[in-house]
Amino acid sequence: MLNIRFEKTTTPKPIPGAENPLTFGTIFTDHMFVMDYATGKGWHDARIVPYAPISLDPSAMVFHYGQEMFEGLKAYKTEDGKTLLFRPDKNIERANNTNKRICIPEISESDFLDAIKAIVKEEEAWIPTKPGTSLYIRPFIIATDPYLGVRPSDTYQLIIILSPVGAYYKEGLDPVKIWIEDEYVRAVKGGLGEAKTGANYVASLASQVKAHKEGYSQVLWLDGVHRKYIEEVGAMNIFFKINGTIITPMLNGSILPGVTRNSAIQLCKHWGLPVEERQVSVEELIDAAKTGALEEVFGTGTAAVISPVGELRFEDDIMKISDGGIGEISQKLYDTITGIQLGKIKDEFGWTVEVN
Amino acid sequence: MLNIRFEKTTTPKPIPGAENPLTFGTIFTDHMFVMDYATGKGWHDARIVPYAPISLDPSAMVFHYGQEMFEGLKAYKTEDGKTLLFRPDKNIERANNTNKRICIPEISESDFLDAIKAIVKEEEAWIPTKPGTSLYIRPFIIATDPYLGVRPSDTYQLIIILSPVGAYYKEGLDPVKIWIEDEYVRAVKGGLGEAKTGANYVASLASQVKAHKEGYSQVLWLDGVHRKYIEEVGAMNIFFKINGTIITPMLNGSILPGVTRNSAIQLCKHWGLPVEERQVSVEELIDAAKTGALEEVFGTGTAAVISPVGELRFEDDIMKISDGGIGEISQKLYDTITGIQLGKIKDEFGWTVEVN
Repeated sequence: MLNIRFEKTTTPKPIPGAENPLTFGTIFTDHMFVMDYATGKGWHDARIVPYAPISLDPSAMVFHYGQEMFEGLKAYKTEDGKTLLFRPDKNIERANNTNKRICIPEISESDFLDAIKAIVKEEEAWIPTKPGTSLYIRPFIIATDPYLGVRPSDTYQLIIILSPVGAYYKEGLDPVKIWIEDEYVRAVKGGLGEAKTGANYVASLASQVKAHKEGYSQVLWLDGVHRKYIEEVGAMNIFFKINGTIITPMLNGSILPGVTRNSAIQLCKHWGLPVEERQVSVEELIDAAKTGALEEVFGTGTAAVISPVGELRFEDDIMKISDGGIGEISQKLYDTITGIQLGKIKDEFGWTVEVN
Repeated sequence: MLNIRFEKTTTPKPIPGAENPLTFGTIFTDHMFVMDYATGKGWHDARIVPYAPISLDPSAMVFHYGQEMFEGLKAYKTEDGKTLLFRPDKNIERANNTNKRICIPEISESDFLDAIKAIVKEEEAWIPTKPGTSLYIRPFIIATDPYLGVRPSDTYQLIIILSPVGAYYKEGLDPVKIWIEDEYVRAVKGGLGEAKTGANYVASLASQVKAHKEGYSQVLWLDGVHRKYIEEVGAMNIFFKINGTIITPMLNGSILPGVTRNSAIQLCKHWGLPVEERQVSVEELIDAAKTGALEEVFGTGTAAVISPVGELRFEDDIMKISDGGIGEISQKLYDTITGIQLGKIKDEFGWTVEVN
């Protein structure tokens, strides 16, 4: 059991009432979890302290060389008052894979889970209960050495902050329009694409701005080598239903291995649907859209859970999907995953973890 | 003229004396330059304040999505007491190119130069004078919005810190050994490779650790598409002398356009040497090494100026260069560039800018 020191806030903030619609990632709870790392000492001084600014030397490596990682998961309140986490083991496993890739020291899986549980328990009153809301959990690690040479840092902080959230997209479960990018590249084989680190997100900003100007809410990336195979959406993985088969790009090293992606694949297989993880070219999509074989498109991600896609655009080709409505599989996945998350549907897969 | 407010430190630090050998990027001066940006307000509140920690909300975007950039240049003290900057216009131009690529608002070139001059003037006493030393100037910009959604920030800080430095590599001007990387990729066409942003540096860490274990001090990157064309070293651009011709990879979008690279090309041309900016494959190098045509290899960068390369390794091929000594062109470029920087050699190119 991780030994955690507590320091209670003396200035608690008001918890937003159910009358206030929640947005994503703008309100934070009263406390945060912090743990330090130093070479030779390991991870140490786990503590829950008042939510407060981080103070770092201007030469701290995180400001210069991008050695930073994060995770995102959610806590839900069930109707009978339990607090549930959704597959935290998957996030912790991925966190350590990111750590390995960018030379951040790994964290004991059980310590990491203890830390998440402890801070969520402390802030339980902040978990919103309106449909579509949850308590978003954001663990992140930053390199803190005050040094301008390029090398892995010798000191780090793991911080976990919490935010009561509503829908990630303003569209909610309404279908989003997605721009397939042909100019910029998010990540390439051999790079950082499968790691959850800032590099992949800063790489996405210019395309996102361009897509927004054209009226699209997200960007779908192509692979960096051939510039023709579908990768992911940055904030989501992507799924296609073509002629009754559920298809999603295989994990190839430059795609984030999404927890919701994995859950959607398992559920579809469980329902007896044919599922293929493989290369999908943009030409295949355009052809399938033309013949009517492209029956459904949706994104999967922790922030939005399931996000139906109503339109894809690649250069001058505009593909309208599911007549702009919510596809059958999208709706069924959304209902099932959120049902399990909220304890309303039996958790046959052992995905939820209770916070006591 | 940029209007800059001053706040003097009340606790000045001791300036390291000439008897103390300087390392790179570990000691910082008494003050720093800071300027804020907010959408609607633009860049504002330019100030020189005591060097002190930066305090940011834990949700500040720089900690999560890598929206950060930096530059690096140097100030020198001449024998007759003048303070010189080396080609600051090139750094400022590149800074704004980086800004555009990662959606940070651009900064007026003249304001940026005013800021650099003002902070260097304030800290003039910190410029070391021993051969091989200088005052390293590190401007950087960080995204400060307290928001967990992925989009460009609406607020930023530009900060300029200064560090009296010695040699970047412990080898000094002694030849370094370089590992040609065949597993990981730093950047790819369409990505962020030509921008000076943390993403490219965090991408380099795992290879650097691997190379160090094998006894190599730096990594030479191959392109991310074909995995066979030479790109750059991360902290330096790379040059080869093959059969009397100076060859360096052309700027292709995934290579940083180095200021020292540009200066070295201009000098070599000025000296009447044939210079080619083009694709260079690793096979070409291996073949040239075998036949003895690979006469010299060196890196160029602000931190190390010129860094002779004594050995390149690609998989099982070990290429020994210049018999492990300092090549003729490397030495001549080093002497000329540092001579101009220190005001000892006539500045025919108008590269130096005096700080008054």
